[in-house]
Amino acid sequence: MLSAEDNELLTRVGPATPMGELFRRFWLPALLPAELPAPDCAPVRLRLLGEDLVAFRDSTGQVGFLAALCAHRRAPLFFGRVEQAGLRCVYHGWKYDVAGNCVDMPNEPPTSNFKGKVHQPAYPAREYGGLIWIYMGPSDHGPELPQLEWALVPDSHRHLSKWIQDTNYAQGLEGEIDNSHTMFLHSRPNSFLRPTAGRGSLIPKTTDQAPTMMIKETDYGFMNGVRRTIDGSNDYYWRVTQWLLPDYSITAGGDPGGRKGGRCWIPIDDEHTWTFAYSYHPDRPLSADEHEYLESGAFFPPRLLPSTFRPQLNKDNDYGVDRERQRTESFTGIYGFNAQDRSVQEGMGAIVDRSKEHLGTSDLAVIAARRVLLRRALELQQGIEPYAASRGEIYRVRSLLTVAAEENFDRLLAAHKERMRIPSRRLGRESQPELLPPHKA
Amino acid sequence: MLSAEDNELLTRVGPATPMGELFRRFWLPALLPAELPAPDCAPVRLRLLGEDLVAFRDSTGQVGFLAALCAHRRAPLFFGRVEQAGLRCVYHGWKYDVAGNCVDMPNEPPTSNFKGKVHQPAYPAREYGGLIWIYMGPSDHGPELPQLEWALVPDSHRHLSKWIQDTNYAQGLEGEIDNSHTMFLHSRPNSFLRPTAGRGSLIPKTTDQAPTMMIKETDYGFMNGVRRTIDGSNDYYWRVTQWLLPDYSITAGGDPGGRKGGRCWIPIDDEHTWTFAYSYHPDRPLSADEHEYLESGAFFPPRLLPSTFRPQLNKDNDYGVDRERQRTESFTGIYGFNAQDRSVQEGMGAIVDRSKEHLGTSDLAVIAARRVLLRRALELQQGIEPYAASRGEIYRVRSLLTVAAEENFDRLLAAHKERMRIPSRRLGRESQPELLPPHKA
Amino acid sequence: MLSAEDNELLTRVGPATPMGELFRRFWLPALLPAELPAPDCAPVRLRLLGEDLVAFRDSTGQVGFLAALCAHRRAPLFFGRVEQAGLRCVYHGWKYDVAGNCVDMPNEPPTSNFKGKVHQPAYPAREYGGLIWIYMGPSDHGPELPQLEWALVPDSHRHLSKWIQDTNYAQGLEGEIDNSHTMFLHSRPNSFLRPTAGRGSLIPKTTDQAPTMMIKETDYGFMNGVRRTIDGSNDYYWRVTQWLLPDYSITAGGDPGGRKGGRCWIPIDDEHTWTFAYSYHPDRPLSADEHEYLESGAFFPPRLLPSTFRPQLNKDNDYGVDRERQRTESFTGIYGFNAQDRSVQEGMGAIVDRSKEHLGTSDLAVIAARRVLLRRALELQQGIEPYAASRGEIYRVRSLLTVAAEENFDRLLAAHKERMRIPSRRLGRESQPELLPPHKA
Repeated sequence: MLSAEDNELLTRVGPATPMGELFRRFWLPALLPAELPAPDCAPVRLRLLGEDLVAFRDSTGQVGFLAALCAHRRAPLFFGRVEQAGLRCVYHGWKYDVAGNCVDMPNEPPTSNFKGKVHQPAYPAREYGGLIWIYMGPSDHGPELPQLEWALVPDSHRHLSKWIQDTNYAQGLEGEIDNSHTMFLHSRPNSFLRPTAGRGSLIPKTTDQAPTMMIKETDYGFMNGVRRTIDGSNDYYWRVTQWLLPDYSITAGGDPGGRKGGRCWIPIDDEHTWTFAYSYHPDRPLSADEHEYLESGAFFPPRLLPSTFRPQLNKDNDYGVDRERQRTESFTGIYGFNAQDRSVQEGMGAIVDRSKEHLGTSDLAVIAARRVLLRRALELQQGIEPYAASRGEIYRVRSLLTVAAEENFDRLLAAHKERMRIPSRRLGRESQPELLPPHKA
Repeated sequence: MLSAEDNELLTRVGPATPMGELFRRFWLPALLPAELPAPDCAPVRLRLLGEDLVAFRDSTGQVGFLAALCAHRRAPLFFGRVEQAGLRCVYHGWKYDVAGNCVDMPNEPPTSNFKGKVHQPAYPAREYGGLIWIYMGPSDHGPELPQLEWALVPDSHRHLSKWIQDTNYAQGLEGEIDNSHTMFLHSRPNSFLRPTAGRGSLIPKTTDQAPTMMIKETDYGFMNGVRRTIDGSNDYYWRVTQWLLPDYSITAGGDPGGRKGGRCWIPIDDEHTWTFAYSYHPDRPLSADEHEYLESGAFFPPRLLPSTFRPQLNKDNDYGVDRERQRTESFTGIYGFNAQDRSVQEGMGAIVDRSKEHLGTSDLAVIAARRVLLRRALELQQGIEPYAASRGEIYRVRSLLTVAAEENFDRLLAAHKERMRIPSRRLGRESQPELLPPHKA
Repeated sequence: MLSAEDNELLTRVGPATPMGELFRRFWLPALLPAELPAPDCAPVRLRLLGEDLVAFRDSTGQVGFLAALCAHRRAPLFFGRVEQAGLRCVYHGWKYDVAGNCVDMPNEPPTSNFKGKVHQPAYPAREYGGLIWIYMGPSDHGPELPQLEWALVPDSHRHLSKWIQDTNYAQGLEGEIDNSHTMFLHSRPNSFLRPTAGRGSLIPKTTDQAPTMMIKETDYGFMNGVRRTIDGSNDYYWRVTQWLLPDYSITAGGDPGGRKGGRCWIPIDDEHTWTFAYSYHPDRPLSADEHEYLESGAFFPPRLLPSTFRPQLNKDNDYGVDRERQRTESFTGIYGFNAQDRSVQEGMGAIVDRSKEHLGTSDLAVIAARRVLLRRALELQQGIEPYAASRGEIYRVRSLLTVAAEENFDRLLAAHKERMRIPSRRLGRESQPELLPPHKA
């Protein structure tokens, strides 16, 4: 459980909140490039960390993030015209460039110097790793883009998606790093076995529903070790996943030689969150079959309502729960991993009351994530900047899935140190992140 | 009128409110058995007295009411699986029995004793009189089920229904005990005569729109006497109805040898209410024609939107008011007694501002009900338990409809004392209520 | 910009607010006569200045405005029956006349004198100038109806309409008197030229996007002079518009010999507003072609959703913005002047945060309107009644559209003094306003 005070601290992300400040120290995924497909295309509304913004791509292809309402009389820039070198408000014709400079003010006398005094609030953008990123922090800080493996591989090797979850970000992230729930929420009735177990993969047969959990804190977050007994063997089945600030996961997939992936949660506001999902193969393009699977709604992402980022299975239709299937073939009767996750996470309410929880030993990773986030947020209030924000290369880590006789977490990590770092060849020229300091807001 | 302070006292029913505490001292109707039709059927969400609950029927047929969110991490138990002897949360597999005991905690080590320390908040349930009842009060109190006549007759003799009213409970109950409105709201234009008057019934012809009202308080609530003059006669037309705590009505129907009935109002929260309606014959099964009439929407219940308890005629469609019919054949132009009631009661707003009323002599019963409820609620705050909650047999009363020369209410009641008590033969074996003390929460 | 305190003062219009009190000193347009088409027709709900009302037309044709909920037990009078000489509540039959007197109370004894003690809050109504007006101020004040030209011409000469805007009234009015925006919001891309310019009209060709603005305060509000240079000429293109308390506009149309018009904004509550639009010709009936144009949605009013006063193009459908048309032929890509206005005004939010504006010289009229409204509202708090409310004849003014070498605003006004007053012949017998003191509430 968490005190009501700490729950507020953990979940409030608007301007001037401690956790909001912490998120604002990092580059954050904001848009899929397809949302701004070409120079001078239509602008896009978005809301991040409780702030309303408009994004546009100017004639040169540069992306700009501006505060949603015009500095003049607060007309919505979303209805603006994207013109040569900027976005022009339709109310009185004021025009801004991607940095928020007012570059034209046609309704003031040519002799006026008012234009130079007006600045539209703006945030820097970067295109990197198949996404458009935003930096919403102070302009005298320059974080680095995180060198996450999915961001470093070629476009052909990855699948990216996003959708809206109707909860605070922390409910999404806590579900993600909670290894315990996969044996239940995503399982078959009465078996509590992962559905893919043994299906030609390297995953051994295990019925260990109460695995031993271990946490190893790092400078970017922590590693979560989960050790299960194997039926009819003295070896252990180990999964080691990564959790990275502000809230990326790198899960340990079903096949150690296969696709990898994870999710991150970017707050829209205190009660709504963008989930970004990444699936990728480090070494080869994804196949058509893999794309078909990833678009099927069975895993991540869920299927979306047309022309929106809202899942088809949602609270309004009880996530399509089928009670007959729940009795016979699916623990939940709900189709798709993400719909299963959202059914419980959104069902808690937008901000769950953590003062009423009863946490067990299986909640170790959840507790660790809260501790790290709260500590980093409070440190920042005392002037201690989060180290990870300025060190993109520390994000070059992998998860681990293995069978080993080793029972000690530290020794296991030492033995697999190389396998858990991205080899340098992975940083190909075509996906080299731009590591220059960001331009100033 | 009521002071703003007393209006708050009357209408707030959440946990720890004085009126909420009073309601919590009684067994309350909660569900129709058809909502939980069989052992291990799908669970049901419900909200009562401002608390979110989930109800389920276990493998043995027992009904349980649990707090809606799991004690572990507050996942919604509504999505849970009903399994042998309990309801299992789909998030991490914790399983509860009908009393809220955690009977399985598969994601904790078998050696853990955490399971025994966790208790899901739960309320006792009873099946009685054709309904599923709940007791939401302190576990060291044991109220009795009320021996209302409709609850004592065989299933074949009664018709039960429920629906949602979008107001505080008190607006529903005040309309119910307000005899004065029937001559208007439920009448024909220009006549102000009850539509059934004289139609082969025992109701005499009366045009007395301002009858004399009398109240007789009792240990269960009060009796409301309404005395009307009869056109061309020196006799009086008397109706005596019953009002019983916390808010049951027993109305005096159109035919003294015919069906009887009434309603009660169970707060969902301060602004929404379940209305339960009961129609029954003390001595014989209801006929197919009677069932057809009761399902027609003409009387109680209203017709409902498919698969919901929401009336078809509601605020969104102005209760289907037909202004032409209002001019010619119906005082309201609205179809059905209950839609007529809701049109005025919901139109007041969810909680009517009683400080702005102008009450007349016709509002005597409304004033009495408020007085009794407020007094009982305040007494309970001082430690005085409501007597009626622990004496199920005092609910064995009937209403009265008669023509008599008698003009004194006390003497009238004395003369009809026997007719207004349920004869003991009515308490047949098949409907004997379970009067054992309820199990502890 | 405005301080947060002044923004509150400007925008709050409920009972007992300073600005609400100012609006309540004037007769206000409330309904189109077609909403109450005949004696004893169905009553109409409306909300004005944050108060819920019901309007009805009695058997003699008189209109009454009553508080929405019955004085007795606060049932909604909207469901009432309009009967001989009044509106009868369907709950208990209490009946009120247009002045709020209770003229029948059938559920009280005939000997009761309670009826004479009950008064339903009521406001006086007038039918004048093609609209139904309401006076919501103190009953010991008697404002005059404003002798606006559109109200004085015969019905055949004018077109009146109303619709809902989802903002505070001030956002609508500020857009109206803001001459600067017409060169942008209502223009073609890249030209910033008024679409009608030069099209056989008297409007000269001008590309002056930053005209010189001038304000001349008057006893009824102010005149706004806008002086533009003319391409290839030393003359000026002058537009002088009128703004009259509480918030009427008289715009200077595209053709000085043609139709005139304007709008006013009547608060529904702080966040919703009725816009009333008037188009008229001083001297002749409007033609079928003019009616067709005015109903097309191209100008004012917008097209409405069937059986409502809600525009078809609204926030829910992004005002139908067509990004391709925005690129090629319309500055906004939105069809119709009013939808263009609402796209920016509603997009600011219901009450724009004026503390974050950056006002330029083009905002002179906006600043003037705020100053006049705030000053009048504060004066009224000190007991100084608004002069204009009691002098209907000072509303007999016109706008001006002319080309002149004159560059001084005062001299221009002096030269056109006669053209800017309504000639007395305009006050024909058929449209003589009723200037008797209103009846008392």
